[in-house]
Amino acid sequence: MVMDTTIKTPVNDQHLKQTLKRLLSNAASAFSFTQVEQLIRGIAAAPEPYVDVDAWMKLVTPKPTAELQRALAAALSHERVRHDNGLKTPHMGTARLKALRAEMKRQKIDGFIVPHSDEHQGEYLPVRAERLAWLTGFNGSAGFAVILAKKAALFVDGRYTLQVRNQADSNLYVFPHPSEQPPAQWTAEHLPKKARLGYDPWLLTPQQVIRFQQACRLAGATLVAMKKNPVDTIWTEQPPPPLSPIKVLGNSFTGKNSTRKRKQLSKQLAQNTADATVLTAPDSICWLLNIRGGDVPYSPLVLCFAILHTNATLDLFIDQRKLSASVLRHLGDGVRIHHADTLGPALDELGKQNKVVQLSKDNVPAWIYDRLTKANAKIIAGADPCQGAKAEKTGTELDGIRAAHRRDGAALTKFLAWLATHGPNGTVTEIQAADVLEGFRRENDHFQGLSFPTISGAGPNGAIVHYKVTPQTNRRLSSGTLYLVDSGGQYLDGTTDVTRTIAIGKPTAKMREHFTRVLKGHIALGSAYFPYGTTGTQLDVLARQPLWQAGLDYDHGTGHGVGHFLNVHEGPQRISKAPSMVPLEPGMVISNEPGFYKTGAYGIRIENLVTVVKQQGFKNSTKDILAFETLTLAPIDLNLVVSSLLNTSEKVWLNAYHARVWKIISPLVDKTTRRWLKTATKSIK
Amino acid sequence: MVMDTTIKTPVNDQHLKQTLKRLLSNAASAFSFTQVEQLIRGIAAAPEPYVDVDAWMKLVTPKPTAELQRALAAALSHERVRHDNGLKTPHMGTARLKALRAEMKRQKIDGFIVPHSDEHQGEYLPVRAERLAWLTGFNGSAGFAVILAKKAALFVDGRYTLQVRNQADSNLYVFPHPSEQPPAQWTAEHLPKKARLGYDPWLLTPQQVIRFQQACRLAGATLVAMKKNPVDTIWTEQPPPPLSPIKVLGNSFTGKNSTRKRKQLSKQLAQNTADATVLTAPDSICWLLNIRGGDVPYSPLVLCFAILHTNATLDLFIDQRKLSASVLRHLGDGVRIHHADTLGPALDELGKQNKVVQLSKDNVPAWIYDRLTKANAKIIAGADPCQGAKAEKTGTELDGIRAAHRRDGAALTKFLAWLATHGPNGTVTEIQAADVLEGFRRENDHFQGLSFPTISGAGPNGAIVHYKVTPQTNRRLSSGTLYLVDSGGQYLDGTTDVTRTIAIGKPTAKMREHFTRVLKGHIALGSAYFPYGTTGTQLDVLARQPLWQAGLDYDHGTGHGVGHFLNVHEGPQRISKAPSMVPLEPGMVISNEPGFYKTGAYGIRIENLVTVVKQQGFKNSTKDILAFETLTLAPIDLNLVVSSLLNTSEKVWLNAYHARVWKIISPLVDKTTRRWLKTATKSIK
Repeated sequence: MVMDTTIKTPVNDQHLKQTLKRLLSNAASAFSFTQVEQLIRGIAAAPEPYVDVDAWMKLVTPKPTAELQRALAAALSHERVRHDNGLKTPHMGTARLKALRAEMKRQKIDGFIVPHSDEHQGEYLPVRAERLAWLTGFNGSAGFAVILAKKAALFVDGRYTLQVRNQADSNLYVFPHPSEQPPAQWTAEHLPKKARLGYDPWLLTPQQVIRFQQACRLAGATLVAMKKNPVDTIWTEQPPPPLSPIKVLGNSFTGKNSTRKRKQLSKQLAQNTADATVLTAPDSICWLLNIRGGDVPYSPLVLCFAILHTNATLDLFIDQRKLSASVLRHLGDGVRIHHADTLGPALDELGKQNKVVQLSKDNVPAWIYDRLTKANAKIIAGADPCQGAKAEKTGTELDGIRAAHRRDGAALTKFLAWLATHGPNGTVTEIQAADVLEGFRRENDHFQGLSFPTISGAGPNGAIVHYKVTPQTNRRLSSGTLYLVDSGGQYLDGTTDVTRTIAIGKPTAKMREHFTRVLKGHIALGSAYFPYGTTGTQLDVLARQPLWQAGLDYDHGTGHGVGHFLNVHEGPQRISKAPSMVPLEPGMVISNEPGFYKTGAYGIRIENLVTVVKQQGFKNSTKDILAFETLTLAPIDLNLVVSSLLNTSEKVWLNAYHARVWKIISPLVDKTTRRWLKTATKSIK
Repeated sequence: MVMDTTIKTPVNDQHLKQTLKRLLSNAASAFSFTQVEQLIRGIAAAPEPYVDVDAWMKLVTPKPTAELQRALAAALSHERVRHDNGLKTPHMGTARLKALRAEMKRQKIDGFIVPHSDEHQGEYLPVRAERLAWLTGFNGSAGFAVILAKKAALFVDGRYTLQVRNQADSNLYVFPHPSEQPPAQWTAEHLPKKARLGYDPWLLTPQQVIRFQQACRLAGATLVAMKKNPVDTIWTEQPPPPLSPIKVLGNSFTGKNSTRKRKQLSKQLAQNTADATVLTAPDSICWLLNIRGGDVPYSPLVLCFAILHTNATLDLFIDQRKLSASVLRHLGDGVRIHHADTLGPALDELGKQNKVVQLSKDNVPAWIYDRLTKANAKIIAGADPCQGAKAEKTGTELDGIRAAHRRDGAALTKFLAWLATHGPNGTVTEIQAADVLEGFRRENDHFQGLSFPTISGAGPNGAIVHYKVTPQTNRRLSSGTLYLVDSGGQYLDGTTDVTRTIAIGKPTAKMREHFTRVLKGHIALGSAYFPYGTTGTQLDVLARQPLWQAGLDYDHGTGHGVGHFLNVHEGPQRISKAPSMVPLEPGMVISNEPGFYKTGAYGIRIENLVTVVKQQGFKNSTKDILAFETLTLAPIDLNLVVSSLLNTSEKVWLNAYHARVWKIISPLVDKTTRRWLKTATKSIK
């Protein structure tokens, strides 16, 4: 199919165009027709919301008439078709790689770095930043490519080793494992002497740049910051930056207003002798200002930048079309709004005033770091102060998170009961299962969408750690296999993330042994006590030990932080093999998700979210003793548990957990589900 | 007692002086009488060796006559008395601190940093570097003081929190815990504005200097590198640098000659694009050159510096009096010998030649780093390459280490049998117990001395983690208490380090529960399987978990690397809460030593050395599975084990360990010991 690239404006229906012009003029909108066309292009470049699909229309005029609403909806619908067609262009990895190499030659570079990242170093990207997927076909949530004139490497972690081979052309790319051969090392080994390696300084952090500078030094090559990303040059159908209306998250959800948060962080900055910090992570800014948006899929983010000063005021650099009058009122006097393009001059000004700016080389775009350095600002190393503060949830947030988990657990339980009936008959597909589950979630109060693409993996697909079902890979659930479902929801009061592995029909002894080892690890971590000051790195082995003793392991982290109606993956805390300096603090929310994957056969993962709590009753301890409170509420498949492999305390944990699930979830579900849940949560011996 | 400070020369006996002069002239020694006097001052400033006490005489002349030997021995004996008197000066913390403050004023500084360290950043210091002990009275193996005009702080870790209060004057010093309030932080909070804080650039690493620079910046003060250490100025009786004869450690002990080692490391340097590295750790140089010495207590070190080049040659900066002709032959052509004072100019030369020098800011003296920087040498970050290579023992070294542990285990077992008879009768003191144990070790082949001061702690003294018994603290072992003994030997074929905790008479139920929890941790770590790439930080929790579950913990690391007839504490591997990037590699030797300490009551620690081995039988694993082989062979006190608290696999481990101890040790001990050992290693149910 050849795309009609002549369609350049969203509203090409002449009648609709005339209608819109007339209605806009009647509505006295602040926007001209052309501006509304541009607005609609931005709206279409953002994901379609699950709820309040027409909220964006209030950006056009506060109270659009029904007629204007219909016209705007029709215009957006037109634009979405155009947008989707632009992306649906059949994948031609060879042609795109060839075009990129030609562009590289034109721009006089011998290599170019294509990370999976945007200007905010986010995980979920706006469509226009999906350069890696556009170029290579690989659409996982993490990856990194280095394109040289003759060779190209695509690095994906253990979650994606199978997926990348299905999506990217192995005639074009090699697939090194980034922990065995990091991108910079591969580059050092393959970059010819005197080569010029280009990168987009908006997409790499200063720390990443340093690594590639070292690689270039080893190879006798030069690293070059590009003014214009060569992928953008050749990607003619690249959408504009996304645009979605901002909504306010009130104190009843957050428990702390923005002024208090800004004061708290300003004090920290001052203690570090900093005058300001540049915030580049949208989830930090959303948390700090108590706002949410919809610029990227799955995370309710507003893409923007900010500078926080020690007087607790904030400069916000943003596409101002996202801001309604009520949001402006919410932000108040302490927040100065600026055009997104004026960030550079604002950084120059910090330098001119000899300000001390706190920044981390690990998280900000190199562009910002370099601009500040050139402007002679004094940079002191320090993390984005929002990250630590945001991780320790307020009491209000925790109450909301617990409530969201009750609703979410009820939805998952309904699905599991449905699956118990329909799963074994061989007709249910992965897509259908995911849709049914999503349907139950949609019935919930405060539901805003999924928190990430549901991983619905039957049999061998379950072994693909971050599997994303497509019509091509869609398997039917069949008897004698395992089904792994990892899913979550965004609610106004919390974000959920849960994995259950279900035996469809009768499982093999090996499946049950492996599941039980994973469960033992899950319980060991979930029931651990640990002194204040302990990091996730220290605890990680508890979840792995029952697997290690059998020579088994899993190639992913054990736990990631989870936001409050924000990113499903957030820092700074984590539980993983990788060294961490961040102690687990009371109020942090983190996942507990050991797994085991038998390539080509099945995948097992048991994931609950937990929150860190102070454990009472240890008066003689010199430090506080901490523990985890489990937030997730859904049965763990007893058909997969070999009770003889569990010791007494493990059985006590499992039975107590199931008793709690029964007590809380049973009143929230229908009679059929309740009957199933009774058996699913029975005590084992 | 007032010291006679008029004694300025070692040989003040006129008759002896004349005799020596005559004999030296007859022997045609290369040294004049005055030079021999200086040599003897150096010998006396080194610890007295356990074996080959007269070996130093060969430095005077290769074959001294019996008469000359007697005269030299007499001269050394005189000097030792003088030296010891110089150190025995009654401790007057107030006067010394006052003198230092006066000297600080004279040198125009408002503060001075006194670390427990020497120019090699070693743990065991030559007497002249024991500035912290001389100043404060605290003689633990790690500590740090910051002296300001009005305040002074002495920082010691958890091992020494009790000891420091017994040794240092709390009217003069505060004792912050360094992990809660690091020295630099305390300094930032207490240093007056515009103050000048002095430090000795030989005694701090560049990383430490950076930390104090930040502290000074926060306080609005200035950090000043001192040309002359003010403590040295006021310490009139400070001994000269130590001097001990070097001995060669042959291939039959090391398994790899120096040329091969130097070639291996040179290759690594070249791969890092370095031209050279400056070695400042004496254990690195000793390992690299296959030599040993006796300049400091407990570690067979030769204090010296070296520059290793990528052509595998080495420049050695050393007091040349330590080198006999046979050692010079052993070192060969690839090693160029230089006067110790010429290191500075050699560093300048590296700069002049634009050399790239690999150095770690964490390990070298700031003096060297600064000199290289000033000379315009290009410094690239990188660890001392000897450290990693040295940690992975050769097969020959491991065979030696196993043999050393058999001998050492037999000595400890004899002691434990002796203790079983004599301990409960209330007469044995801590000093006597340590002496008896040392006596058994002295009987062993290849014994060269203790690897650290024996920790012999009865009752409450056992709770002082690095307790060092003195006549003032010397307790009798009494019935109903615990006795903790942590000790080790230096053998030509290996270094040992072992801790056992023994019930004297009948222990309480709490003692037994705590001991059993420590044992569970010891077993969990000792029997862990883990994939290649795992660090000690990841495994640490296994040893702590049984304590954590009861709200208990211990405030020290779980495992430290151990050298091969070298430092009893060596890196880079370790097992501890602190983040580590160093995977445990096959052939590394490390301790497994969880503990529990009840202040004022008792201390418990169970320490075995282990070595990392590949575990066979996991064919399906994508990575090698590693495990620990236990090296230490001595019974664990079954009177302290509550078998009902052990699960089946823990009992299997303990019984198998005891069966192995019985099998290997019983043929090496006397009949009485053997009878006792039979019971001590019996199977439990």
